[in-house]
Amino acid sequence: MSNSRVAGLMRFAVLAFCTLSLPMNLRAQEKSSIAIMPLPAHIMQGEGEFPIDGGFGVALKGYKDARLERAQQRFLDTLSRETGIPLWRQAILNSPHFTVQTAGPSAAVQQLGEDESYHLEISTTNVQLTAPNPIGVIRGLQTFLQMVRITPKGFSVPVVTVDDKPRFPWRGLLIDSGHRFVPISTVKRNLDGMEAVKLNVFHWRFADNQGFHVESKKFPRLQAKGSGGFYYSQHEVREIIAYARDRGIRVVPEFDMPCHTTSWFLGYPKLASGQDPSQSSAIDPTRESTYEFLAGFIGEMAALFPDSYFHTGGDECDVKEWETNPRIQEFMRTHAIKDGAALQVLFTAKIQKIVAGQKKIMEGWDEVLQPNTPKDVVIQSWRGQNSLAEAARSGYRGVLSAGYYIDLNQSAAEHYRVDPLGDTAATLTPDQKTRVLGGEATMWTDIVSDENIDNRIWPRTAAIAERLWSPHQVQDVDWMYQRLAIVSQKLGYYGLRHRLITDEMLQRMSGDPDPVPLKVLAAVVQPPRLYERQQLRTFTDFTPLNHLDDAVPPESETAREFNEIAKRIVLRKANSQEWQQARQWLLLWRDNDAKLQPLLSRSYLTQELAPVSRNLSRVAEIGLQALDDLHENRVVSPDLQQRNIEFLEASGKPQAVLLLMVAPSVELLVQATRTQ
Amino acid sequence: MSNSRVAGLMRFAVLAFCTLSLPMNLRAQEKSSIAIMPLPAHIMQGEGEFPIDGGFGVALKGYKDARLERAQQRFLDTLSRETGIPLWRQAILNSPHFTVQTAGPSAAVQQLGEDESYHLEISTTNVQLTAPNPIGVIRGLQTFLQMVRITPKGFSVPVVTVDDKPRFPWRGLLIDSGHRFVPISTVKRNLDGMEAVKLNVFHWRFADNQGFHVESKKFPRLQAKGSGGFYYSQHEVREIIAYARDRGIRVVPEFDMPCHTTSWFLGYPKLASGQDPSQSSAIDPTRESTYEFLAGFIGEMAALFPDSYFHTGGDECDVKEWETNPRIQEFMRTHAIKDGAALQVLFTAKIQKIVAGQKKIMEGWDEVLQPNTPKDVVIQSWRGQNSLAEAARSGYRGVLSAGYYIDLNQSAAEHYRVDPLGDTAATLTPDQKTRVLGGEATMWTDIVSDENIDNRIWPRTAAIAERLWSPHQVQDVDWMYQRLAIVSQKLGYYGLRHRLITDEMLQRMSGDPDPVPLKVLAAVVQPPRLYERQQLRTFTDFTPLNHLDDAVPPESETAREFNEIAKRIVLRKANSQEWQQARQWLLLWRDNDAKLQPLLSRSYLTQELAPVSRNLSRVAEIGLQALDDLHENRVVSPDLQQRNIEFLEASGKPQAVLLLMVAPSVELLVQATRTQ
Repeated sequence: MSNSRVAGLMRFAVLAFCTLSLPMNLRAQEKSSIAIMPLPAHIMQGEGEFPIDGGFGVALKGYKDARLERAQQRFLDTLSRETGIPLWRQAILNSPHFTVQTAGPSAAVQQLGEDESYHLEISTTNVQLTAPNPIGVIRGLQTFLQMVRITPKGFSVPVVTVDDKPRFPWRGLLIDSGHRFVPISTVKRNLDGMEAVKLNVFHWRFADNQGFHVESKKFPRLQAKGSGGFYYSQHEVREIIAYARDRGIRVVPEFDMPCHTTSWFLGYPKLASGQDPSQSSAIDPTRESTYEFLAGFIGEMAALFPDSYFHTGGDECDVKEWETNPRIQEFMRTHAIKDGAALQVLFTAKIQKIVAGQKKIMEGWDEVLQPNTPKDVVIQSWRGQNSLAEAARSGYRGVLSAGYYIDLNQSAAEHYRVDPLGDTAATLTPDQKTRVLGGEATMWTDIVSDENIDNRIWPRTAAIAERLWSPHQVQDVDWMYQRLAIVSQKLGYYGLRHRLITDEMLQRMSGDPDPVPLKVLAAVVQPPRLYERQQLRTFTDFTPLNHLDDAVPPESETAREFNEIAKRIVLRKANSQEWQQARQWLLLWRDNDAKLQPLLSRSYLTQELAPVSRNLSRVAEIGLQALDDLHENRVVSPDLQQRNIEFLEASGKPQAVLLLMVAPSVELLVQATRTQ
Repeated sequence: MSNSRVAGLMRFAVLAFCTLSLPMNLRAQEKSSIAIMPLPAHIMQGEGEFPIDGGFGVALKGYKDARLERAQQRFLDTLSRETGIPLWRQAILNSPHFTVQTAGPSAAVQQLGEDESYHLEISTTNVQLTAPNPIGVIRGLQTFLQMVRITPKGFSVPVVTVDDKPRFPWRGLLIDSGHRFVPISTVKRNLDGMEAVKLNVFHWRFADNQGFHVESKKFPRLQAKGSGGFYYSQHEVREIIAYARDRGIRVVPEFDMPCHTTSWFLGYPKLASGQDPSQSSAIDPTRESTYEFLAGFIGEMAALFPDSYFHTGGDECDVKEWETNPRIQEFMRTHAIKDGAALQVLFTAKIQKIVAGQKKIMEGWDEVLQPNTPKDVVIQSWRGQNSLAEAARSGYRGVLSAGYYIDLNQSAAEHYRVDPLGDTAATLTPDQKTRVLGGEATMWTDIVSDENIDNRIWPRTAAIAERLWSPHQVQDVDWMYQRLAIVSQKLGYYGLRHRLITDEMLQRMSGDPDPVPLKVLAAVVQPPRLYERQQLRTFTDFTPLNHLDDAVPPESETAREFNEIAKRIVLRKANSQEWQQARQWLLLWRDNDAKLQPLLSRSYLTQELAPVSRNLSRVAEIGLQALDDLHENRVVSPDLQQRNIEFLEASGKPQAVLLLMVAPSVELLVQATRTQ
């Protein structure tokens, strides 16, 4: 059968069966070769492979512009890095096997809801990418790059047909440059990562109590006094906006007000509510001069950021500061404002008018939603789907961030299970559901440094990206983790450092160029989840983030895999390879402590790990015994079982600001042993 | 005893014993804590440590300028990366424990032979860095950074007093952006590496037959036709020159002529000697228009590059092209020029006048040295010390590159043993010796990519840097390797990628995120030395450099260490730990093949490694037997011994463009077994 005929049949197949071709219906064998993340809306796999070698050629057809040409160049750069084949010079001259057909331009400023769809058709000899506009092309190129793999015959992609478009139009990553300045180079490589997983909103937050990190030309004391010397020039901001636009990403700025604003007051103390501006965190909402300042400032920033949306924060206001200030109390009495919350309502309404006056749509955190809030304001929810559902019922559009707080060291699976239309949002009418625009992962920088930020963001944000792009029915957590591992490696080709950070930091902590036993320990510990970490150690702006809880990824891959095996052993579903793997791991962990202790004592950064290492050894010893007991179906004394369980539960508690993640899995094994 | 009193005593000690304080006289225990590379001219160690924590403060005293402030900032950036302590904001505000005293400015354009000396005095409470000018400060800051280490009490540097200055004034690294374009970011991070090891000349070569990679505004077709779209703009060149100057590095440009110039002819075919410019590699030295062009071009470039030296190449001319060209033959007859070599002499003399007319001193490869060459011309020698010595005797200054060709996969020790004043240069008079200015490592880019260039340059170039900076008596190769390992890790803090590359490439080759058995094999193989590699595989500009010989470092650290142990075993000097280590390695290698073969078959890039892996296994098996025989002092059959030696010698030959580096060491063991 000729290739063109196969392609023809495949097109027919897609048309005929597209409703059946949702990815979750793929057979296991097909699943293994589809390493796309987020999964496309529709995919159909054929036979064979499209090879990639030095003869590879790519051409743009139809509508063309400079952004498409840069996208093509970037595609070739990434493909060259993925394969080690120097394609960038030659591939544009070669006769094209890969044609990109673009129907027309995108909007001059990327719009919410703009078409991101594409059609990708790969045969054994040709690739055809078709899209209505450059954004769709950018999305489709990423799908192709993710499928590139090595085979005994060379690099190739599998023969597939993909019809794809996102489920939600707002799929964001917040990077908080307020708590800490995040260097431009870090922002850029994370925009590259966002492009790879088809995120389309970079929510850039510039100020918090700790610092004001962007240049204002109108109010230069903001950055002069508030930035500690680290701020983005307007030139750099424009550079990032252009860089993001090239990747199909909108940039929505956030200037959080009226609270989280101590840094503003260093240069402009009259804005502060408190007597001592350096101790005040809330803007004074009672002075006319405040609104004159903010109108000027918002005007300047609205001109700098072309996006239609403008985020004014509004979260977590310390209204006590107003309620205890005699001057502000007096104002509240005069204007019959009953409390601080009501005063914030007044402030927000004024700010909304200023933002609207700049032809921008205001976005704010949950708190900005009040009875009189105009209906076009977008609510970003740190409270959850119910809050979002309520807003949607009242006619407001919203973006979910609760559940996507990637700074809180939750697992990819936890984030993956959070659906913007889950919980009570599931009961919304179809019309109300369209008001739920999507979601945003939030990289708050309270306890992260430029060094480890990539391992906080990646790869888990890819799982959130999939939740926001792929059909609702895509829910297979195991398959998600399989693809996440592959995508995680691919993200390295974009320059992301998440897979390099841990080793580098372990080397520094230990002073050893290859601290193997420390790596063994590091692979099975995690920083505590949610806000427990802050309770275990004091973190200030100057706290060195060079401990093991800073170095390890938020989710232990090894512990997760061991836990999967432990569960299968307990359920008597494990095969002999899995028994063997569990035993090997337990032996490694049991014997690790003796090798690790001498190393730990040499550095003040590792000394605190001594008890964690001892616990791992003891946990593994108990695990080995339980494995044997289970294997031999031996009867165990209930006393001993109980003592072991107590030890394992104690070992599962944080120590040195770390959780020993294999303790609960070993506990599963011990619980499953037979007692009399 | 008070700290100031200790410091006082130490100063006395330095004055009293400085001639005895050459590093090679340090006791082993002292050596272990001095991880400086290049070793300083004088160092004296005291008792105790200077701690580095969040309270660290640094201040500039005496002469100040913007470059010093940037050096201070860069110092703090690196120190922050080395420790994970965020020092950059605070350390300039803290009360200074580290004072930098600069006497006066450097020259506006860094001069050959400019003072680079510094005095560094570290006590348990204070650090004092004194230098006559900012260049000395830059050198001293690096010495401090190299000594930073982690201890049970925190990060610190040992108490030492250093008096330091370089042995040679010209210590360079050539990066060849002629064969391949080397991206700006790569140039920058290698300049950072040069700063770390106190190199002071960046020899930047812009063109070769394959490409012309810098912007000429006067002759824009040079880059428009000759660069394939990849060239440095003049703006970027200026940026790099400023970047290098900040690091105490001169930038000497090379425009190689009259040969290696095919790429020039794409835009300006009239310059070519041949009828078909695309097949010609030599400039036509007989036309007046050639010199008009070159006067204009050199004038433009002499203005762009502020350094006093200007390199015009001159190497490896294919004079046959002239000798077989009727028009050029005619010219030679008319002007009584006896052969092509003589014609090059004429060309060089004219170019030298053009360069001198620009107030620049010409530098060229060996070939430019001719009887009438003006005495100020600097000779760069690819031929060796004897050629350099001969030049020095004739009154010429020279720079050695023979022996420092880091593209040829020689060991650090081989480069380290090459001394610009070695061989017959050792017999020069003191006056003649001053004409030997130093040396340059040469990173030719025939067979290197932007991906693996860092692992070709580093860490071996640090050994060359030591040869050029440190006193002649510094010759301890074992100690060099000990320090090289530490410096190699430190270079990672400058963003150099040499320690990351191999793993990344192995992952790509295998398609496996953590290909452990492939790493085991990779750790004991090397690409063949010198020009043998090119004989084993055809390399063109488009050859993908994604094989194992591209991925592994030029020198196997594991094989070197194994070889050291094997030598000690044979000499009956090995201790039980070393016997144990040798056995462990051999067991690992013997058993690796079974794990590796399934992995190898999955990728076309690893299939060729199957016989190499089998050989490693068999070599290790023989090694284990020999180890036992030696240990038990067993008698071995001469036939078996001979057969094993034959196998080992065959296994030491290149296979898949790789050398199995442990085969010769195992052969040592087998040779040492007792026969009858």
